[in-house]
Amino acid sequence: MNIAFVGTGVMGHSMAGHLMAAGHELSIFTRTKSKAESLLKAGARWAETPADAADGAEMAIAIVGMPEDVEDVFLGDHGLLAAATPPPIIIDMTTSPPSLARRIAKTASQRGVSAIDAPVSGGDIGARNATLSIMVGGETPAVATALPVLELMGRTIVHQGPAGSGQHTKMVNQILIAGGMLGMCEGLRYAEKAGLDGHKVIESVGGGAAGSWSINNLGPRILERDFEPGFFIEHFLKDLSIAIREAEAMSLDLPALTMAKAFYERAVSEGLGHKGTQALQLLMESGDS
Amino acid sequence: MNIAFVGTGVMGHSMAGHLMAAGHELSIFTRTKSKAESLLKAGARWAETPADAADGAEMAIAIVGMPEDVEDVFLGDHGLLAAATPPPIIIDMTTSPPSLARRIAKTASQRGVSAIDAPVSGGDIGARNATLSIMVGGETPAVATALPVLELMGRTIVHQGPAGSGQHTKMVNQILIAGGMLGMCEGLRYAEKAGLDGHKVIESVGGGAAGSWSINNLGPRILERDFEPGFFIEHFLKDLSIAIREAEAMSLDLPALTMAKAFYERAVSEGLGHKGTQALQLLMESGDS
Repeated sequence: MNIAFVGTGVMGHSMAGHLMAAGHELSIFTRTKSKAESLLKAGARWAETPADAADGAEMAIAIVGMPEDVEDVFLGDHGLLAAATPPPIIIDMTTSPPSLARRIAKTASQRGVSAIDAPVSGGDIGARNATLSIMVGGETPAVATALPVLELMGRTIVHQGPAGSGQHTKMVNQILIAGGMLGMCEGLRYAEKAGLDGHKVIESVGGGAAGSWSINNLGPRILERDFEPGFFIEHFLKDLSIAIREAEAMSLDLPALTMAKAFYERAVSEGLGHKGTQALQLLMESGDS
Repeated sequence: MNIAFVGTGVMGHSMAGHLMAAGHELSIFTRTKSKAESLLKAGARWAETPADAADGAEMAIAIVGMPEDVEDVFLGDHGLLAAATPPPIIIDMTTSPPSLARRIAKTASQRGVSAIDAPVSGGDIGARNATLSIMVGGETPAVATALPVLELMGRTIVHQGPAGSGQHTKMVNQILIAGGMLGMCEGLRYAEKAGLDGHKVIESVGGGAAGSWSINNLGPRILERDFEPGFFIEHFLKDLSIAIREAEAMSLDLPALTMAKAFYERAVSEGLGHKGTQALQLLMESGDS
């Protein structure tokens, strides 16, 4: 299949590679051309704009950064939907606002195009190993057509509902993580103050009702004072901000999410935006009396 | 071994049964004698007080309710340590304050007795299947002697440190759960408001970085409006209250834990104390605008 692919950052690069390995022909646009180099060498075509990449393609996929990037890539003057002959299916795999996903879907339908929102979880490792969880929103026929392509990039692929539902599901994912992260950091702070050996504590609690991916994977990193990013605080804050805005629009008060967002805002203002989400621990420590 | 066993409630009954099945001879005291009936029929000796149960025994184990019950059972006029010939090892498997565990250990040592705190997680199912996680505090020789007995009741048994360390570890367990519970309930509220199918959402998020025991086990119960107790809110609130008092004593501010405690206090005041911890969801719903 001829696929336009926009955004070959850490995640997108691996994902595009899987599509090419399966025999798909890619037209690539990404902000920093050098990041696409190895894909171009492997035979992908370079495009000067998203519209150029999309023109005549059978499908377009984007995974970029911030909501304004998504808006630009899909709806901008040189965006995917501005292609002379846009592809019948366009897929946003960025984590971006559900309301934006619905707006893209509406604009797309006016051009006879089906838009799918399909944000992922699983990080760079999941992208590399094609084990991502892909949360899909969109109309059923388009999702069915996209499925074989999505299956090249992920393992758990669930159609959640109409346009925006994939993004909403990703928001739930981030809300769960936010609460868990608060509990984890507070628990490990308590353990340290109580003079416990954090590794032994995780051995006791990680397999039971208190168990979570976070405590078993990020907990040990915190204990080893490893605050390097699996997932950037900066990106997590973007997601939490989207979640809070969407919740407000639904008249939903989420106090723990609000608390987590405030912590991560402080983290960014203290220069920790490029640390991993587990660096919440550093903030909690600095707040101690 | 001749073992005194105090407290044959839902947890204790199963645990005492495992000890008897392994050939130990039990002397039992519990507040409501009828709850010990099947154990007495199976050959356990009834004792009129904890002191009576403990007299001449080689080990004493208690799993009761509130901190004041623990104080009574261990330190009271008719408590385990008031036995004419107290056992050389006494074990508190109740979740109770680390500071109380240290006080019991101190009083015990004055009578030449080693005290161990060994609270558990895993609930009634873990007690029934002897798969509990047992978090152990106490001196190494006593813990080594107790280990074969503890192994009859649990699967993950970790010696965390000196007296009080088992209770501190259990506090970490509850702090982790509290944060995770906030995230889970907020996430599922969001999912509902967004019109998502909660079961599909859990399918997408439960196996990745947002995954936890709570979302995978309590999440589906919430979706099915099943708020019956795995673990009573009333008991969880007791634990969170202990955790907060201990944290305060260590000059540790735990805002998410404080938030969770406030929610569960409201739950109890609204008559939900005998519902399961997942009934936090009901409170969040009632607080919606």
